[in-house]
Amino acid sequence: MVEGKINEIHGWAAMKPGLKVEPWSYKPRPLGEHDVEIKIEYSGICGSDLHTIKEEWSGTMYPAIVGHEIVGKVITKGEKVTHLKEGDLVGVGAQVYGCLESSCKACSRDLDPHCPDSVFTYNSKYADGAQAHGGYADAVRVDASYAFKIPETIDPVYAPPLMCAGATVFAPMLRKGVKKGDRVGVIGIGGLGHLAIQYASALGAEVVAFSHSPNKRDQCIELGATTFVNTANQEEVDAIRGTLQYLFVTSNSNASEYKKLISWMHFEGQIILLALPEGDMNMSPVEFVISEVAITGSLIAGVNVLKKTLEFSAKHNILPIIEKFPMSRVNEALERVDSGKARYRVVLINDE
Amino acid sequence: MVEGKINEIHGWAAMKPGLKVEPWSYKPRPLGEHDVEIKIEYSGICGSDLHTIKEEWSGTMYPAIVGHEIVGKVITKGEKVTHLKEGDLVGVGAQVYGCLESSCKACSRDLDPHCPDSVFTYNSKYADGAQAHGGYADAVRVDASYAFKIPETIDPVYAPPLMCAGATVFAPMLRKGVKKGDRVGVIGIGGLGHLAIQYASALGAEVVAFSHSPNKRDQCIELGATTFVNTANQEEVDAIRGTLQYLFVTSNSNASEYKKLISWMHFEGQIILLALPEGDMNMSPVEFVISEVAITGSLIAGVNVLKKTLEFSAKHNILPIIEKFPMSRVNEALERVDSGKARYRVVLINDE
Repeated sequence: MVEGKINEIHGWAAMKPGLKVEPWSYKPRPLGEHDVEIKIEYSGICGSDLHTIKEEWSGTMYPAIVGHEIVGKVITKGEKVTHLKEGDLVGVGAQVYGCLESSCKACSRDLDPHCPDSVFTYNSKYADGAQAHGGYADAVRVDASYAFKIPETIDPVYAPPLMCAGATVFAPMLRKGVKKGDRVGVIGIGGLGHLAIQYASALGAEVVAFSHSPNKRDQCIELGATTFVNTANQEEVDAIRGTLQYLFVTSNSNASEYKKLISWMHFEGQIILLALPEGDMNMSPVEFVISEVAITGSLIAGVNVLKKTLEFSAKHNILPIIEKFPMSRVNEALERVDSGKARYRVVLINDE
Repeated sequence: MVEGKINEIHGWAAMKPGLKVEPWSYKPRPLGEHDVEIKIEYSGICGSDLHTIKEEWSGTMYPAIVGHEIVGKVITKGEKVTHLKEGDLVGVGAQVYGCLESSCKACSRDLDPHCPDSVFTYNSKYADGAQAHGGYADAVRVDASYAFKIPETIDPVYAPPLMCAGATVFAPMLRKGVKKGDRVGVIGIGGLGHLAIQYASALGAEVVAFSHSPNKRDQCIELGATTFVNTANQEEVDAIRGTLQYLFVTSNSNASEYKKLISWMHFEGQIILLALPEGDMNMSPVEFVISEVAITGSLIAGVNVLKKTLEFSAKHNILPIIEKFPMSRVNEALERVDSGKARYRVVLINDE
């Protein structure tokens, strides 16, 4: 059996609910024959990281090292890993294990995040009981199926946000078949939204960006939106009523505000929820019947979609807009994300 | 210009909010060149009729003759009507006019009930200001595009419920592509539901019928359901969790109970709302994201789907289960429907 090179992984863990991580280390589980050991170079900060360390979603297992936008070099590979070799630059997203069997009702339809055996990148447990820890660290061990070679044309420091934010917005666009001529709305111009504009635009759609921050207008147009709608401006909102084939919702406004979104849609339009805001959508069945609009949601991307995300991003030169912080200033970076001021994604850089 | 044969249409009208209609007559609008005049033989009772006469939906224009499941013979046709002739047995559903232009964003996608110019069969106005009146009467004049020849193999007294209930449930099955091997749920076994079971079964799907009335079990199986689930029996409900590709909701339970339906669905399953119950669906975005289930609705069928409904019904011998009442006992029939005891649709028969 191949042994890993790093016997103690050093990272930054949340020790209790709150917006604070501190140095902590753990002994990684044995390197499985299908696993790779990755020396982490870059780690993106995702909103989910903050929800987890603050325990805004129930059940955080402390200490918890979060981070599921990981980019680094393979330093060791299990004996059965054939598609990666030492030295390869790879990315890891929000999932580190799924059965990937054709008999699995989730994995067989590219929905491996819903696999009953799935292990997420952090705050999740392997079948052997070991807790998975994420990317705010110097290394990580994951199933090699969930480590993806970063195309050479992508500057590595920009790659982390593609692994979660990028793939998460691209996955439902692929599944729904967003195409040239569709009119696609994106509401919430942040980490996910600014990438959603780029993917939808590269797929040939006419993109309408919605935000309550009019100062994001120029940037949305630069990213590929054909129209920017200031949601606080009723005239601008009225002008797009009944016109959208798809609406990707990445905003974290309280869900009670979602009701109005139906009126923005074309008949049979699809609203795809990607965010997990608080509150309920108080919608009447009548609104669905008279609009024939559909509401659905999408979790993170599976293996096949992650590969396609990286290929497509490289081909169309889709990159996130990022702010960089050294890993040692991770607490400052978390506060930056928490403030909502980051434009648009933060990447932590390991110092050494 | 061709003149109609009936100068005064005699029917049963609601004069004010309540479950009561009384004899009343109106002078029909001039017979247009694209119109037909129909002598009504049979008229089904739809739940919408009751909502309208009781003014449970706002805006009933009294006096109102309701009824939008009409079957009768063409007695006069406008000069430009070519596809029908006098003596043809035709059915009329819930709509009597739509522009049907290829430039119409509704009609062009077989969604003519959503046409901005649509006129519904009753409680609706034509562009000339005349009010449309429905089928609890001896005659009606409608645009000939909305009068459909009843296939000869269908016993005419069974045809009315196909015009609204039947087409309404069949329309989304066609649009969504329900097919052999799909697992399709139908909740609410009444006028719509008992037809939905038959259509889904004839399309090759495995049908699961849901009802809180266990005494409907045998009939559901006879109609083509492979499984009956008593929604009051938690074990039976648990056994189907996560298995449905489609769920057609024809139940009028308060919408607050709809939340649980998501857990019955397979990943990416589609819940299609066909009823207009009171209340809101208090659903959290989280439920959509972690299930990837979609909720949508469907109104009534357009011209093309109505034709297909009649063809498909004839081919697969799909007929409603009905109770018959003479038109003179319409008030008794309305009470029967209101009581929820009708099995499963009531058809009024004109005496003469």
